[in-house]
Amino acid sequence: MNTWFTELQTHNVSLGLKMEDVLWHEKTPYQELAVLETEAYGRMLVLDGAIQTTASDEFVYHEMIAHVPLLLHSKPRKVAVIGGGDGGAIREILRHPGIEEAHLIEIDEKVMEASKRFFPEIAVGLEDDRAHIHFTDGIAWVKQAKDFDVILVDSTDPVGPAEGLFVPEFYQSIYDALSDGGIMVAQSESPFLEPDIIRRVMDGVSRSFPVTRLYLASVPTYPSGLWSFTLGAKNTLPAPRQVPLKTRYWTPDIQKSCFHLPGFVEELIR
Amino acid sequence: MNTWFTELQTHNVSLGLKMEDVLWHEKTPYQELAVLETEAYGRMLVLDGAIQTTASDEFVYHEMIAHVPLLLHSKPRKVAVIGGGDGGAIREILRHPGIEEAHLIEIDEKVMEASKRFFPEIAVGLEDDRAHIHFTDGIAWVKQAKDFDVILVDSTDPVGPAEGLFVPEFYQSIYDALSDGGIMVAQSESPFLEPDIIRRVMDGVSRSFPVTRLYLASVPTYPSGLWSFTLGAKNTLPAPRQVPLKTRYWTPDIQKSCFHLPGFVEELIR
Repeated sequence: MNTWFTELQTHNVSLGLKMEDVLWHEKTPYQELAVLETEAYGRMLVLDGAIQTTASDEFVYHEMIAHVPLLLHSKPRKVAVIGGGDGGAIREILRHPGIEEAHLIEIDEKVMEASKRFFPEIAVGLEDDRAHIHFTDGIAWVKQAKDFDVILVDSTDPVGPAEGLFVPEFYQSIYDALSDGGIMVAQSESPFLEPDIIRRVMDGVSRSFPVTRLYLASVPTYPSGLWSFTLGAKNTLPAPRQVPLKTRYWTPDIQKSCFHLPGFVEELIR
Repeated sequence: MNTWFTELQTHNVSLGLKMEDVLWHEKTPYQELAVLETEAYGRMLVLDGAIQTTASDEFVYHEMIAHVPLLLHSKPRKVAVIGGGDGGAIREILRHPGIEEAHLIEIDEKVMEASKRFFPEIAVGLEDDRAHIHFTDGIAWVKQAKDFDVILVDSTDPVGPAEGLFVPEFYQSIYDALSDGGIMVAQSESPFLEPDIIRRVMDGVSRSFPVTRLYLASVPTYPSGLWSFTLGAKNTLPAPRQVPLKTRYWTPDIQKSCFHLPGFVEELIR
């Protein structure tokens, strides 16, 4: 059968993937969730029509959202992930020796259910003793959180349930939930297609955090294939720690060069 | 009107762009040529159904194919571009002081005609006194060429007219056409979607050139959004020269970090 999934990445750009099967499809209380089998990228999780993760390229996003900030923190022990119910960020966090608690705050229990069932290699970290799962609203949860070393915002796009994760008040709550030397990272969309979102996140984060940096990674199933992450730190960033990590995208050189922005990206956040 | 151009980037991945108009469409002796107006990326040149360049993102590819090798050559004076009839690589080459001759070898005259008419900002360098245009087959032309400092292979994909630009014999002809210290660069497709082509080009170039390196750049309208360039050099590469350049993607940091490959790319060329 010649069946295709098409994501309208913006109102005028689409990505199409030939698919073999619809493995799961349901309306959760929060969003429309689907798991598809694609030819090019293997299994794929889709929320509200937007590709979240695929078996073939998930390593890029999950390694880059987790390792870059963790290696810039002197001794991360207590880490939280807002969103990220698939568990990929938790899996990467738990590769770091010294991690004592990795909290996952996911509003939609069904995302984790789908991940455990269809993406066991992504969800693997969720069974770890150090993983603590909270099915609740990330905005409310962060307000009562304390003494975290690193907080990652692994959210969907700023429409629907994730809208409140892209406002300055939320970044201030994260700042308050971080201990001294704390670091946050939020996914902040594509510099080619959503420069305004990057500006908004950089501006929002910089209202609370004295140090704000943008870094990039190549995720082929995300709009334009180039993705940005906004990092906020309470203190000046040190040289990254050297830790041997089993990775497929991240390398010690990438840890540094992901902050080397193309000229037009430097320009847009100036 | 809700009309879309769709490129089948591989047999199971497609990119769709909402379009406003078909500005030109013809069958040349070599390929099917179209110029479309798209909403997201502006004007776009399409050959045999594959996006070649768009007004919005052409700067990435053209800056990166030209500046990276030119700055690794001690004194580039005589440069050739095989393919690249749109003129974008020539435009970037001519930004370098010291360039005496920039030769363009394009098999299809119609590509340049379309570029001059619809992309004057890309074709601008073609009118320069230092630009020499040859409408002929690049493979034959290279066999008689001599004393070039840098040769760029700015080709279409390795099907149709460009097939002979992806074989070891061609890279040997380039080697012979280069002077001492000469450098070549060939576009070599996406590491996510066409790893076998990268391996083939790296292997082919390394049969003639003692120094072979791969570098990457993010081109949103090319398959997967991440593009590779294979560089061959007759001598050990020096530190890049420092030349002030007016660019939008390339920066002095990018000159170095484009060679920092994600782990899976290092692995595939090992």
